[in-house]
Amino acid sequence: MARQERAIKTRRAILEAAAAVFDELGYEAATISEVLKRADVTKGAFYFHFPSKEALAGGVLELAVTTEGVQPQDLMLQEALDTMLIMAHRLPQEPVFSAALRLAVDRNSQRLFGTRWPDWIALLGAQLSEAKARGEVHRYIDETETARLVMSAWTGVRIVSEGLPDAYDLPNEVARLLQLMVPSIAVPAVLSQLEISAERGARLLDAMARSRLELEEGAVSC
Amino acid sequence: MARQERAIKTRRAILEAAAAVFDELGYEAATISEVLKRADVTKGAFYFHFPSKEALAGGVLELAVTTEGVQPQDLMLQEALDTMLIMAHRLPQEPVFSAALRLAVDRNSQRLFGTRWPDWIALLGAQLSEAKARGEVHRYIDETETARLVMSAWTGVRIVSEGLPDAYDLPNEVARLLQLMVPSIAVPAVLSQLEISAERGARLLDAMARSRLELEEGAVSC
Repeated sequence: MARQERAIKTRRAILEAAAAVFDELGYEAATISEVLKRADVTKGAFYFHFPSKEALAGGVLELAVTTEGVQPQDLMLQEALDTMLIMAHRLPQEPVFSAALRLAVDRNSQRLFGTRWPDWIALLGAQLSEAKARGEVHRYIDETETARLVMSAWTGVRIVSEGLPDAYDLPNEVARLLQLMVPSIAVPAVLSQLEISAERGARLLDAMARSRLELEEGAVSC
Repeated sequence: MARQERAIKTRRAILEAAAAVFDELGYEAATISEVLKRADVTKGAFYFHFPSKEALAGGVLELAVTTEGVQPQDLMLQEALDTMLIMAHRLPQEPVFSAALRLAVDRNSQRLFGTRWPDWIALLGAQLSEAKARGEVHRYIDETETARLVMSAWTGVRIVSEGLPDAYDLPNEVARLLQLMVPSIAVPAVLSQLEISAERGARLLDAMARSRLELEEGAVSC
């Protein structure tokens, strides 16, 4: 493995360990020694990448906004929905995303680092804006406001379901939420072409995992 | 003032002071001595009502679910919407409600006291169930699931707007959210009769304040 590649892997391993610790303990209670223990890297390597707990939190938050796994679609609105359906699968499984949400909700870390919510709103807002330019969404829809409300609702579904005595499946809850909201956003001829389901998110995630694997195998066979 | 009435006022003053402290500092950092200082009551009266910080948090959470200010309407769905529109005005102004939400989001206090979210879902679910029995909402709507999603979305709008750099007006955000969601819930002939606006919540709240004042004046003139 080239030196640079190794450094990238080490950095990623540290961030994933840090995310798990932030997710379990919260920002205040998290310690660098706990992250060190879980990341299984040398102290030298660790401090080379992240000199402080603040740097770790910043690094986790950096990873929190992504459209990875979204495939180009005929309808831009479908791409916006896919972004949210995929994240509904990833967040409960990948500590990087659940930790970023926990950091965003915590008032201390919010004051220190802000949140990635403005970036999510900008991302979804740009997708809705393009969808509007193509005539897929109603002309009276304000794309930034709608992005903010849909993203906030998505976030609320996650936060509240964590505080209920029964367990709810996030991908399914998010799909039901979007099914309630999208009819007010999409024009009817587009609405009937959209696929809004937890299964779609799972399928896209599978395809993403397969193409990652192929990339890695390709790299090995070179 | 009768002894019982005075006791109720003292209890309420303590809870309001406690709510303000929980809201500002969070459950962990809140102290009884800080609440005592703000409530302006004797130590004896305080401990008569609330022997511990746990009891204070429990008392605040008890007050968090209410339909106060909702007037009987021809449409039950309007009553459900009024419940949420009124709360959008009250939460930013009354620490009892914002503290209850902060306690619900905090993992420690969540573990100790649970949240009032199940009660909100039950309340909205019962309103939607009655609305469905009257034919106001689509027959394929699952009232409990819809109550859960709408309440979660409401909560997300509050939580996210607190974490954004710009200030958003909660009553207006909640009204816009409900305007997006309700068209998927109400049958069209009912939808066109509904009033979903921040102004409606303000009007109902005004009427509530006036009738409280009249009650108090009535009590004085007796």
